[in-house]
Amino acid sequence: MSALRVTVWNEFRHEQNAKHPASTIYPNGIHAVIAEGLAQQGYDVRTATLDQPEHGLTDQVLADTDVLTWWGHAAHGEVADALVEKVYKRVHEGMGLIVLHSAHFSKIFRKLMGTSCDLKWREAADKELIWIVQPGHPIAEGLPECIEIGDEEMYGEFFDIPQPDELVMVSWFSGGEVFRSGCCYTRGRGKVFYFRPGHESYPTYFNEHVRRVIANGVRWAAPSNSATPVFGNTKPRIS
Amino acid sequence: MSALRVTVWNEFRHEQNAKHPASTIYPNGIHAVIAEGLAQQGYDVRTATLDQPEHGLTDQVLADTDVLTWWGHAAHGEVADALVEKVYKRVHEGMGLIVLHSAHFSKIFRKLMGTSCDLKWREAADKELIWIVQPGHPIAEGLPECIEIGDEEMYGEFFDIPQPDELVMVSWFSGGEVFRSGCCYTRGRGKVFYFRPGHESYPTYFNEHVRRVIANGVRWAAPSNSATPVFGNTKPRIS
Amino acid sequence: MSALRVTVWNEFRHEQNAKHPASTIYPNGIHAVIAEGLAQQGYDVRTATLDQPEHGLTDQVLADTDVLTWWGHAAHGEVADALVEKVYKRVHEGMGLIVLHSAHFSKIFRKLMGTSCDLKWREAADKELIWIVQPGHPIAEGLPECIEIGDEEMYGEFFDIPQPDELVMVSWFSGGEVFRSGCCYTRGRGKVFYFRPGHESYPTYFNEHVRRVIANGVRWAAPSNSATPVFGNTKPRIS
Amino acid sequence: MSALRVTVWNEFRHEQNAKHPASTIYPNGIHAVIAEGLAQQGYDVRTATLDQPEHGLTDQVLADTDVLTWWGHAAHGEVADALVEKVYKRVHEGMGLIVLHSAHFSKIFRKLMGTSCDLKWREAADKELIWIVQPGHPIAEGLPECIEIGDEEMYGEFFDIPQPDELVMVSWFSGGEVFRSGCCYTRGRGKVFYFRPGHESYPTYFNEHVRRVIANGVRWAAPSNSATPVFGNTKPRIS
Repeated sequence: MSALRVTVWNEFRHEQNAKHPASTIYPNGIHAVIAEGLAQQGYDVRTATLDQPEHGLTDQVLADTDVLTWWGHAAHGEVADALVEKVYKRVHEGMGLIVLHSAHFSKIFRKLMGTSCDLKWREAADKELIWIVQPGHPIAEGLPECIEIGDEEMYGEFFDIPQPDELVMVSWFSGGEVFRSGCCYTRGRGKVFYFRPGHESYPTYFNEHVRRVIANGVRWAAPSNSATPVFGNTKPRIS
Repeated sequence: MSALRVTVWNEFRHEQNAKHPASTIYPNGIHAVIAEGLAQQGYDVRTATLDQPEHGLTDQVLADTDVLTWWGHAAHGEVADALVEKVYKRVHEGMGLIVLHSAHFSKIFRKLMGTSCDLKWREAADKELIWIVQPGHPIAEGLPECIEIGDEEMYGEFFDIPQPDELVMVSWFSGGEVFRSGCCYTRGRGKVFYFRPGHESYPTYFNEHVRRVIANGVRWAAPSNSATPVFGNTKPRIS
Repeated sequence: MSALRVTVWNEFRHEQNAKHPASTIYPNGIHAVIAEGLAQQGYDVRTATLDQPEHGLTDQVLADTDVLTWWGHAAHGEVADALVEKVYKRVHEGMGLIVLHSAHFSKIFRKLMGTSCDLKWREAADKELIWIVQPGHPIAEGLPECIEIGDEEMYGEFFDIPQPDELVMVSWFSGGEVFRSGCCYTRGRGKVFYFRPGHESYPTYFNEHVRRVIANGVRWAAPSNSATPVFGNTKPRIS
Repeated sequence: MSALRVTVWNEFRHEQNAKHPASTIYPNGIHAVIAEGLAQQGYDVRTATLDQPEHGLTDQVLADTDVLTWWGHAAHGEVADALVEKVYKRVHEGMGLIVLHSAHFSKIFRKLMGTSCDLKWREAADKELIWIVQPGHPIAEGLPECIEIGDEEMYGEFFDIPQPDELVMVSWFSGGEVFRSGCCYTRGRGKVFYFRPGHESYPTYFNEHVRRVIANGVRWAAPSNSATPVFGNTKPRIS
């Protein structure tokens, strides 16, 4: 079996702003660090960023991608609608999609969810504890029952998403909030996993457990090679 | 408790075409027959159609609607995008939405689902048997375990929808197909119920059990008067 | 429409122990306070307790009960297995069941769930914040987005239950834990709602929001008058 | 990665009755044919049957089993309750369980579901069409959109199970019934997959697609190596 082909997409703006903490924590971009973690799992990993031609996601790249991870924050509006349509189509064909942190507000996630995906937030170095609420799920593989993250941006409920098909994790924040942090969906033949942590001002993507979740999510979201559904006018099966 | 305010929306084109069977079966429009059935339940019912100004759904009408039912088929593309946005917003605020038959392809349903909502179909007077698979659900109230419909258009799987939060009914068709016929979702604070039968060439909306399902769906989808979610930057609950 | 008939069942042991704080907080029993709250909603409420003949749940009482609420803690093992079977059968026939707090370990809840229903706990007057994660759900009717409870026993994940059909609330605890606090299930034609708070050493059942949740839960769990399912050897529908 | 260890359990009574068609179709037992199909996938397969000592499922065998498949029909009552408890415990620890056809009425499935698992049935060589309703699910891997089975026993709704966490397949029967045929659950850390076909009087387990479903089900139900949940009295995470 050949390795899963993963494309790590990143907005890559904060990290190029020398005044932003992200430029110190992720000097080569968040994508470089996420990609490094995934490569260690043996996946075939490439990266793509907003400011590349076609945002780095040409038709060929998309066609060659089994699972796409998506990080965006300040420039969701700059992602071309035509690309969003292409990604949407690829997810429906079976490409997995891992939606990270502030990408809750990305065009593609909102389009796939059919909701606003809005939430509460606070940048105040809250402590975050991520509890596993479905320990038998493949995305929980190899994890402790609780992932502690020292400092993180808070995200709080109500998180305006459809009820997840499978809820794998719930976060606790020191300021008093909770959040559905690991959420699984199916759209068409594709699987979508939303994973909460990863604010650009903290070194969250160096955390080994966070890396493990993303790697597990990629494996869970890998395409299944089932028959392409047939739609439209059809003759009876039985006569 | 005052009566639920229901608005029955209909494309109302087939019925005005003298050459179409719908003009004989539903001379005053499908909406008139659906509205009649709902009024018998004591709801406060009004109707609206595509060719009315603002498609009959002014801001005031939408604001005064607890549950909206939607039937469309040939003219989904003519529904103004701005109206779709308004309905979408109202659903998220809590307005219930009952999506009927060929409205699976309506703009509003596809936008709320995040999928293509495509399916197999056949116009060949198939026999349809609708089986209740969740008999304790409020939408099953007063129904037999199986609803028989003499002649109907066939809809077959794969139906490209998100897995329903609650699957209440599954249809059997004489040509060999099955279909998830009664599907419940929540979007924001609003509830969405998709119900399959109701091709314009058959008198399906006169069927007492079909009427009962729609009436039950309206009751199930009625708004809950819960707190409006607060989004955005928030202070800690705990300090 | 006649009023819903609710039976409030309570173990009623802690409250009769003069050395236990419950004897001061709930001198007439937790059931008296829960029943008072439900009666204010217009329900037809009676109570039953462990040490009554047949635990207060005769066949006639069960037959006349639309929704049963259950509180137990120290004496789950003393509930007769024969009664558990009767309650199980009534739930499958459509009787609603509201499972409160430490009744997570009751025989009836474990039997209906098919899991151990085990969890973490701590008696240390944690602060509890109960967040609504499905604001459109009927059980959220009339509630704020967060219910604050001053002192409560902590319950923490992993809570060994099947994934809820609908997850309505998630709790935050000051010690760092989260908990799925409001969980909806269907079993047969009956509905089951688990609601977390209510340790006997705290006046939780006097809290107006807690009372509202229980009252909403009762309404949600009310039986639907659908056809009794037919099982066994059956002739073809179609010949 | 070492091969998944699968134990194929079978009641193995019909096949030893020379007057029963099963004795001709499955002379070495249904388990032998299922095991053959799974061995072809590279799994490490063994078998066990009711009339072996300890029903063939010693503590050691259970400890060494990653996924257990279960076929039973006429002798559910003869399975020792103590063994059912052991299997239940192993499922909660993470062992996968594939429940086949008439094992819907097995003690272990009913205990895990918390419902009667009753259904309609008919032995009349109905035609069965199994439609995939979640084509992106790993259990649909490599399958056509519809599996045709020439002659089968009919199972019809209402199937008294909890709503599946994931519904993968729905069956159509020539007599007019439908059935939720491929149903996924999680219990504790274990995964449970119910798959409908496989009446002993028909050669269903030689069907390549049926074999594929069982093989995919085994892979899906494989244990995840996550942390063993900690239950009971616990100290605060945060102080």
